[in-house]
This record gives sequence, structure tokens and C-alpha cells, in this order.
Amino acid sequence: MRIGQGIDFHQLVEGRKLWIGGIDIPHDKGSLGHSDADVLLHAICDALLGALALGDIGTHFPDTSDEFKDIDSKILLQRSFQLIKDRGYKVVNIDATLCLQAPKIKNYVEAMRKTIASLIETDIHNISIKATTTEQMGFVGREEGLTAQAVALLQRDE
Amino acid sequence: MRIGQGIDFHQLVEGRKLWIGGIDIPHDKGSLGHSDADVLLHAICDALLGALALGDIGTHFPDTSDEFKDIDSKILLQRSFQLIKDRGYKVVNIDATLCLQAPKIKNYVEAMRKTIASLIETDIHNISIKATTTEQMGFVGREEGLTAQAVALLQRDE
Amino acid sequence: MRIGQGIDFHQLVEGRKLWIGGIDIPHDKGSLGHSDADVLLHAICDALLGALALGDIGTHFPDTSDEFKDIDSKILLQRSFQLIKDRGYKVVNIDATLCLQAPKIKNYVEAMRKTIASLIETDIHNISIKATTTEQMGFVGREEGLTAQAVALLQRDE
Repeated sequence: MRIGQGIDFHQLVEGRKLWIGGIDIPHDKGSLGHSDADVLLHAICDALLGALALGDIGTHFPDTSDEFKDIDSKILLQRSFQLIKDRGYKVVNIDATLCLQAPKIKNYVEAMRKTIASLIETDIHNISIKATTTEQMGFVGREEGLTAQAVALLQRDE
Repeated sequence: MRIGQGIDFHQLVEGRKLWIGGIDIPHDKGSLGHSDADVLLHAICDALLGALALGDIGTHFPDTSDEFKDIDSKILLQRSFQLIKDRGYKVVNIDATLCLQAPKIKNYVEAMRKTIASLIETDIHNISIKATTTEQMGFVGREEGLTAQAVALLQRDE
Repeated sequence: MRIGQGIDFHQLVEGRKLWIGGIDIPHDKGSLGHSDADVLLHAICDALLGALALGDIGTHFPDTSDEFKDIDSKILLQRSFQLIKDRGYKVVNIDATLCLQAPKIKNYVEAMRKTIASLIETDIHNISIKATTTEQMGFVGREEGLTAQAVALLQRDE
């Protein structure tokens, strides 16, 4: 068994889409980034890569590369998962928390879990997505940005 | 085995009690929230729920419900634990860190660990509570609020 | 098996060295602290101590003690590891993320991993170090400080 963790941050700005967990969420602001800036999928990519000490999302998918400009982060998650699968590992479970002041994401959590479970070839019951505000404090509380944290437990697939 | 993580935030304001880890800590400010706003117990609830993908503290104990107004978070932890116990799991160990600038909580850590261990039916040696300041930085450093993070390892109880 | 987590914060100021992961990184600012203020090694110490509920870095190596003034944090990591080794545990793997706006640490990651692996008597493939900015947000984004988070998985050494 192996443990991984990931954390990611993105600014919220007007004129961008708000992709979270592979879902396009209606909101007056969106995530700023080189890719589609999906904070949750990026945290999960990092947890998968980190569990096997394979580097991080920045080393695999550099934000200076045209290849990853505006890329769908579902592709990044799929590629991250492929790297751990190639090494003979599978996901036991993933647990993540989104920290954002708005919007409420409750109604999108099932769709996110289903999307992620499918991409990393596991059951939806092995994917947990939680959410919290920061009680109006800090840059998340001022709705300048959002952050996500994830932990992953992997095991050898025998 | 399953892994879970939780993170929680509360503002510190005058005229409220400072409940942390089930203990009422003397201080000139306390945690603001719908319940007793125990940041550590909330992070642990989320880690337990997250490990089995059972949602989060907000979905189980909504802060819009009169049922949970000013509720003792020890009850929320007990109910969260019952949900994982009902599914045949027990706690291997929990490790948490409190981020707060003041007060020093060192003298209360043993009482917190004992309280939590008892509520989730495990030994005190399976409960770890650490603390750090943020070195005067950010909203925690300015004593506007406090935050707690927890990870949990669960296993099937056979 | 046991799980641990750690988080640490340090201010960045002129006139100090920037020790991260046991490596002295050239930069115009360094970490402020009682010891050498190595944010990554401190987060890992806390994850090791926390996994076995042995307290935290502040209880073992108090920043009020002359013994630890300007101490090399590699010594603190070695002592933390000795405490878990004495109890019959070894490290399965550690995964960590540094949050800092500058400098880029990519070129130092291998040296950090090698240093840490050697100190805690494990293979370099069991040590993962990732890095992210906070996208210019908060005290990390303003380069006032840096933070590190780590998770550790331990098992009985039989």
C-alpha cells in the first residue's frame, strides 16, 4: 500500500468557466489557469503521482507547454492514472475536500464522483468529495480563489 | 483499509466559547458557528465520513437545521462514528493538526485525545493531536480564525 | 499500519538561509525560525510523530530551548525517526507538497529526496516531494512565507 496527497489553488476570475471535478459548474466566475484549471482534478492527479513518487502535475504537464493550453483536466487525470496503472497499482480510495466560499457544489458532487471513478477505473464508493467554506476568511473567503486537497490510498493490483 | 481527510475553519470572535477537541478552553475569544464550532471535531468527522465516501459534515448535519443549533460537536462525532461502525469499520488511527496563533493548547491535548478516543471506541494511542501557529501569517496569524486538518485510517472490523 | 500528517509554516525574510528538505537553496530571502526553519523537514517530522501519537515537533524540540537554536533540521528528522524506529515501525512512504511562490525548487527535489530517504532509512522511491504556487494568493502568494504539508504511511517492521 502507498499513500499520496495533493493540494491545488486557482484564482477565480470573470470570463472563465468553473470546472470542478470534471463538471462545468454555472457561476459568475471561473478558475484561472493554463489548462481548464480544475482544482479538484489537479489535487487528485498530484495525490496519485505522489503516492508512487512520480513527480507532480507541474513536472508531467508543465504550464509552459502549448500541449496543455486549455486542456481538459480529465485527460491529465487519465494520464496520471495510467502512470500508476503501468506500475501495477490501483486506487483503494480517494478522499478530497474543496475549500470555496461560493457556489454551493452539493448538487454536482455525484456527477463529479462518477466522472472521476470512471477515469481511474474504480467504483464510485471509492471516491469521496467534500466541501467547506473558509467562513469568509482569507483569499478563499473573499472569493478571490479556491483550493482543493486530496488524499489517496493505492495498493498493488494482484 | 480506507483513508480519509478533513479540514475545517472557524472565525474567532468575542462572546463565544472556544471548544476544541471536545474541551472548553479558557480564552478571550471563541469559535463562531451554528453548532459549538469545534474545529477539530469537525475535521475528524469529515475524515471519518470521507474515508467511506458518506458525504461531509454539511450534508449530515446542515447548519441551516434547528436540530444542530449550538449542538455539542461530540454528538456529531459520535453520530459520524456510528455511520462507519454500522458499515463494519473501525478506526486504526487518526492524526490531526490544529493551526492557531493563540492560546497554547498543550495542556489540553491529553484531555482532547481521551475524549475523542472514547467517542470513537478506540485507544488513546490511536488519536494524535498536534498544534502549530502560522507564524503570524494570514487570518490564523492575525487571530481572526483557526483551522484544523485530520487524516484517518480505517479498517474492516472482523 | 499507521497514518500521519504534518503541516508547517515559516516567514520568508532577508538575511536568512532558505533550507528546504535539508538543502540550502540560493534565494534572496530565507526562512525565519528558531531552528534552521526547514518547513519541509518539520512537516515530515510531524507526520512521523503524529502517526504514532508521540506529540509534535514543538513538544519534542521546543523553540524556547537553547539546545535547538539554529539547529540543523536534519538532526530533528533523525531524532523523530529514531522515536518511531524504537517502537518497531518503519516508513512505507511519505508524500509532501511545498507551497511557495518562489523560487522554483525543481532542480533541488532529487537532492532533497535522497537526503530525507537516507535520514529515515528508506529508499528514495518512498519519498515524494511536490511543489505548487498559490497562484499569487494569500501570504504564500505575496512571498511573505511558505508552507509544507506531508502525509506518511508507517508499518511495523517485522
